Amino acid sequence: MTDRRLRLGMVGGGAGSFIGGVHRMAARLDDQYELVAGALSSDPERARHSAAALHIEPDRAYADYETMAASEAGRSDRIDVVSVVTPNDSHAAICHAFLSRGIPVICDKPLCTSMQDARSLAELLGRTGLPFVLTHNYTGYPLVREARARVLAGELGTIRVVQVEYPQEWLAEALEQTGQKQAAWRTDPARSGPGGSVGDIGTHAHQLAGFVTGLRLESVAADLSSFVPGRRLDDDARMLLRYEGGARGMLWCSQVAPGCENGLRLRVFGDKGGLEWLQAEPNVLHFSPLGQPTRRLTRGMPGLSEAAANATRIPAGHPEGYLEAFAQIYTDAAALLRSWLAGTPSGDAGALLPGIEDGLRNVAFIDAVIASHKADAAWTRLEI
Amino acid sequence: MTDRRLRLGMVGGGAGSFIGGVHRMAARLDDQYELVAGALSSDPERARHSAAALHIEPDRAYADYETMAASEAGRSDRIDVVSVVTPNDSHAAICHAFLSRGIPVICDKPLCTSMQDARSLAELLGRTGLPFVLTHNYTGYPLVREARARVLAGELGTIRVVQVEYPQEWLAEALEQTGQKQAAWRTDPARSGPGGSVGDIGTHAHQLAGFVTGLRLESVAADLSSFVPGRRLDDDARMLLRYEGGARGMLWCSQVAPGCENGLRLRVFGDKGGLEWLQAEPNVLHFSPLGQPTRRLTRGMPGLSEAAANATRIPAGHPEGYLEAFAQIYTDAAALLRSWLAGTPSGDAGALLPGIEDGLRNVAFIDAVIASHKADAAWTRLEI
Amino acid sequence: MTDRRLRLGMVGGGAGSFIGGVHRMAARLDDQYELVAGALSSDPERARHSAAALHIEPDRAYADYETMAASEAGRSDRIDVVSVVTPNDSHAAICHAFLSRGIPVICDKPLCTSMQDARSLAELLGRTGLPFVLTHNYTGYPLVREARARVLAGELGTIRVVQVEYPQEWLAEALEQTGQKQAAWRTDPARSGPGGSVGDIGTHAHQLAGFVTGLRLESVAADLSSFVPGRRLDDDARMLLRYEGGARGMLWCSQVAPGCENGLRLRVFGDKGGLEWLQAEPNVLHFSPLGQPTRRLTRGMPGLSEAAANATRIPAGHPEGYLEAFAQIYTDAAALLRSWLAGTPSGDAGALLPGIEDGLRNVAFIDAVIASHKADAAWTRLEI
Amino acid sequence: MTDRRLRLGMVGGGAGSFIGGVHRMAARLDDQYELVAGALSSDPERARHSAAALHIEPDRAYADYETMAASEAGRSDRIDVVSVVTPNDSHAAICHAFLSRGIPVICDKPLCTSMQDARSLAELLGRTGLPFVLTHNYTGYPLVREARARVLAGELGTIRVVQVEYPQEWLAEALEQTGQKQAAWRTDPARSGPGGSVGDIGTHAHQLAGFVTGLRLESVAADLSSFVPGRRLDDDARMLLRYEGGARGMLWCSQVAPGCENGLRLRVFGDKGGLEWLQAEPNVLHFSPLGQPTRRLTRGMPGLSEAAANATRIPAGHPEGYLEAFAQIYTDAAALLRSWLAGTPSGDAGALLPGIEDGLRNVAFIDAVIASHKADAAWTRLEI
Repeated sequence: MTDRRLRLGMVGGGAGSFIGGVHRMAARLDDQYELVAGALSSDPERARHSAAALHIEPDRAYADYETMAASEAGRSDRIDVVSVVTPNDSHAAICHAFLSRGIPVICDKPLCTSMQDARSLAELLGRTGLPFVLTHNYTGYPLVREARARVLAGELGTIRVVQVEYPQEWLAEALEQTGQKQAAWRTDPARSGPGGSVGDIGTHAHQLAGFVTGLRLESVAADLSSFVPGRRLDDDARMLLRYEGGARGMLWCSQVAPGCENGLRLRVFGDKGGLEWLQAEPNVLHFSPLGQPTRRLTRGMPGLSEAAANATRIPAGHPEGYLEAFAQIYTDAAALLRSWLAGTPSGDAGALLPGIEDGLRNVAFIDAVIASHKADAAWTRLEI
Repeated sequence: MTDRRLRLGMVGGGAGSFIGGVHRMAARLDDQYELVAGALSSDPERARHSAAALHIEPDRAYADYETMAASEAGRSDRIDVVSVVTPNDSHAAICHAFLSRGIPVICDKPLCTSMQDARSLAELLGRTGLPFVLTHNYTGYPLVREARARVLAGELGTIRVVQVEYPQEWLAEALEQTGQKQAAWRTDPARSGPGGSVGDIGTHAHQLAGFVTGLRLESVAADLSSFVPGRRLDDDARMLLRYEGGARGMLWCSQVAPGCENGLRLRVFGDKGGLEWLQAEPNVLHFSPLGQPTRRLTRGMPGLSEAAANATRIPAGHPEGYLEAFAQIYTDAAALLRSWLAGTPSGDAGALLPGIEDGLRNVAFIDAVIASHKADAAWTRLEI
Repeated sequence: MTDRRLRLGMVGGGAGSFIGGVHRMAARLDDQYELVAGALSSDPERARHSAAALHIEPDRAYADYETMAASEAGRSDRIDVVSVVTPNDSHAAICHAFLSRGIPVICDKPLCTSMQDARSLAELLGRTGLPFVLTHNYTGYPLVREARARVLAGELGTIRVVQVEYPQEWLAEALEQTGQKQAAWRTDPARSGPGGSVGDIGTHAHQLAGFVTGLRLESVAADLSSFVPGRRLDDDARMLLRYEGGARGMLWCSQVAPGCENGLRLRVFGDKGGLEWLQAEPNVLHFSPLGQPTRRLTRGMPGLSEAAANATRIPAGHPEGYLEAFAQIYTDAAALLRSWLAGTPSGDAGALLPGIEDGLRNVAFIDAVIASHKADAAWTRLEI
Repeated sequence: MTDRRLRLGMVGGGAGSFIGGVHRMAARLDDQYELVAGALSSDPERARHSAAALHIEPDRAYADYETMAASEAGRSDRIDVVSVVTPNDSHAAICHAFLSRGIPVICDKPLCTSMQDARSLAELLGRTGLPFVLTHNYTGYPLVREARARVLAGELGTIRVVQVEYPQEWLAEALEQTGQKQAAWRTDPARSGPGGSVGDIGTHAHQLAGFVTGLRLESVAADLSSFVPGRRLDDDARMLLRYEGGARGMLWCSQVAPGCENGLRLRVFGDKGGLEWLQAEPNVLHFSPLGQPTRRLTRGMPGLSEAAANATRIPAGHPEGYLEAFAQIYTDAAALLRSWLAGTPSGDAGALLPGIEDGLRNVAFIDAVIASHKADAAWTRLEI
């Protein structure tokens, strides 16, 4: 446990970024990383100031990611991993720049904006064997892992129905027209890709359902809306789901639902039981064995799976939240990186980490949803 | 207020019935009715015993509904109204028998099992002007009426998204194969009609959403399942909704969802606010004006609409439930009947009562859902 | 089951009464009673109008309870039982009038306003063996009975701590000065007796805790307040509890707690488990075996005690409420009365019904609380 | 923003400690500190290993706090502040060792185990003006600060009733007899001081109520229990409260309440409104203006006070928890320290931080509670 801290670089995440700060808090919480290099902004002045504020030495405060990748690759104390926290359209090129120089990547979701880019990255990763983590952070919650463990252990029996939803309210008005940075790029097809709410949060919902159930989504029948006048991407998406093996489901994501702050909710029903988890109350998992009273499972309580127990820091009743779940992704990634750096077979390190497969499936998901919508909600298969 | 009690008859509802007893408790609660006649069972012995247990005089304990309708129509103290609480397939004929003899009807939902029958009843009612009430009992909850009042008053703005669901768990196994009476007829196409979960509870969900929003459902894209081996009707249905005027939505009903007892839930989102109501916690309505904290509205509190205030018996904090909501339908029906008996224009009596229009729309809903499912979830219009 | 309906009389409960209407709805719900006689108001005109509205024949609409008791006692079709729903100060005399003429009584709580009167009634009942029921209606909730059954079955082990509270908000301002009838008598020592919130709701809390735990309260250390200027009785009371056998606890009742409508809540903790029940969500009981996840027990679910199952009308997920719990008291009372009328040993009829013992203990409770408060919260024993 | 990180030292918190790890995560989260020195354990070997695991240089891994204080005081790069996270009985001496050498202190609660020690520390602080922070971490929750802001702004009017409780279940059995380290010292009078549950969690409850209401507790009437056989300190405490100015209240703390993990809950009622906050759902504050619906205030939503907005990192709907609240104390302490280091008047830095005054009041609280209990729950004043 007296291993040195891993050296972390970051692309994106300068002043005004939301997710960059989240990645940094996540990286710090369990003390596995130190941030030593960055290309934090495409604006050189902002990049410099942001780096200074983050205690990055001036010579590792880069003006652009290409320079950073090239320069870091040549250092003896080069970064162990880079976090990519830019808008979606730039992920593919940035990941490629670092991976092609042998530097592992932690990339924000969704992976990228086209299947072609996704497949290209998958090919590169397959060839190099480099560690690659996609921050589907909700899988870092201990009770999400508990849910997965219970499904895999057969406690729900055969899965019949999956209900997943992710409603938000923050884009109920045309926030993008006020200059708000987060709203601006997320509603811009050029930077966000072809999916609006589908790409931003629908992908989380799709990935979470797959993570917990172990099921692969086969096809979708989708109906998209852009309710806010002038909006160019969907801000509400409703769809029917068919999973391989016969399970069925529904997915709803929305950015125009007043009263819903960040309402990711997953319910899974099998022939032996059901479960329910809400991101807003992440320390609780409701588990209902058929014919018995619902159990209120809580983070840190006795009797949970090893997967859940390993992802918790403090005792039951002391709420952990979004940042701790995000930190879990980073901490698991650290184990994966250390194993890779040591040249040892990774064993279980990273077994629960989302990666390129999740990325491929989610880009295919976005494409299928949009194709289905254009075909008047016709059933459309995900093509990986 | 010293009006006599209305004379109530009942068809169906003998020993072993669930909904018959509910109708009788509902009729008793506010003391507007006395049960004086019945054809309570198709089994004559059971009909007689059931009548005696309910203090019905022997000469008004009928062996069948035809005899009852004919006999009652000829009495000077004839029943003021008859409640029809038989399985779905018999509703149309029974309603016709009484209505054609000038006796008003309170009918359990769904109205009947074919559009032809539905239209025939509508024609008869249009011609005779007789009072007719369909017991979509969830509309009797005061906070459902509050929700409707707020939507109509514009507090949600233009409705964008409707999310309605009605999951149950009671048919997660093949209960119908154990001889359980409720399960047996509800899973039998001959008695239940073409819809399983769709007809039994999907219709409630559809009607409730329409009642609260005032919107008409235009078309559905539906995917149905019969998860339990051997089951002949759907036990889980998932569908996308398109409303006239541009609102969109989703509806889920299920009888195979462990952990869900009777989970009717409605959420409505407009451009100015959202609301949420759960039947399991019927004394609360969550109202979220855009950009403001969610308000917890409770039955009986000051500041609610007249529609909500009129549908409550006891102070806030003293929970009312399912039977009180059902009683409200009966009590509103009593006002309608008294107005009709008095020959006075009904005014507002019965303005909130579900009736033949709801019945027509729900039979069309069932037909459209099944047609859509057969067409691989193609968008299908409701044809009234 | 074809027994005739029991003939019910009522004293109090005319126009403007809250609890009178509740008693009548409770008596009607399960169809065990018909209201045939009443002395509904001390105002003769109001008594007459109220009786007519309730379909009571004019010759049984009495001007005062003395006349009613005397007259009914002489009839061959005399009432089987009388409900006493007047302000507290008159309970003793009215109960005495009917009991002394051999007529059973259902009396609203608290029993009366002095231990002398309480003991006198107890003596009369002991001598006559007449049925007597005190409407501590919260014991009619099925999950309260489930809680009791679990404690008695030892599922909580030895009880250590009892936490019971009953906060309301309705008297946070001087409502009694506005002419509101309910507020007026409840804040008037002459009609309410020496306890304000203590007598009105503290007695419910005390009785409920005793009903569920089976423990007798030994002594109290109490601190009372009259927060609203000009109020003559306590409107908030806080106290420490010591039970016989070593359990300890706390009781809080308040009528000045904004946000609390009728917040009766009971929590019981033993060395093997704990439970929690809230009147505002009466269809749920939280049961926490030590070291295991909390179970959400719901009314009507499989696996509950016979006591709970017998006190429910409709399936799980169809909420029952305050009126159904109140009705359960009436329905259990009907079983007790029928058994008594038949001259058969009552067996279990009425085993769960609150009666004179509860009344005695509650009057002693009020006296002890007030004595403790006057003695600066000194521990004070209940003297029965 | 480019200030250097503050240099942090720590006394206690080696392997096996719970709270030491919490302090370190709290210090890391907002990147204001780096841990550079420590006397982490009284066992030298454990101290050395723990320091190495935490990346502390060997020459600053001290064997005891005296050596550490003396050595650090003499360094030019000496620590800016020391965190004291040892059992309660050693706080006073350790704080004294550092403060007397001019080194500011962040001390875990409760301050110490006797009023004499508390006053001595207060005197030293008064004389030196050194920064001193007591980690009453629950005051770091943004909605606790919102609650305080609303009370101070008069939105609740005059406070009448305070209800605060802190039940846990973890000591329902004799865990201290199994060798569990946390249980062992917390139930040992020599290390924990005279209060068991009172000292460990009752102090949090007392402090929280004072923080939110701004009221000073005047006297208590307390009843303590040691329910678990062999336990030497109280494991359940119940008490009545009298605040200066006329507010009244109750406080319950327990370590033997099955089903309660860490159930800190505060309710405050004034003549204009009420509020409720639960630590288990820390992102929500329920606010009930008298006569209006309860508002669900959430962390990060628009319209909250500056105090709440400043204590939040990520958007509404992304739950923050215990560690974030604890981090807020550290981050506020950093502002206080930087201001002090700069020699500038501190202004508002640290205005919300708990300090020596809270420590004094809590030691007096423990003493008064125990004295009251010994006097059979007699009202006992807090003597500062």
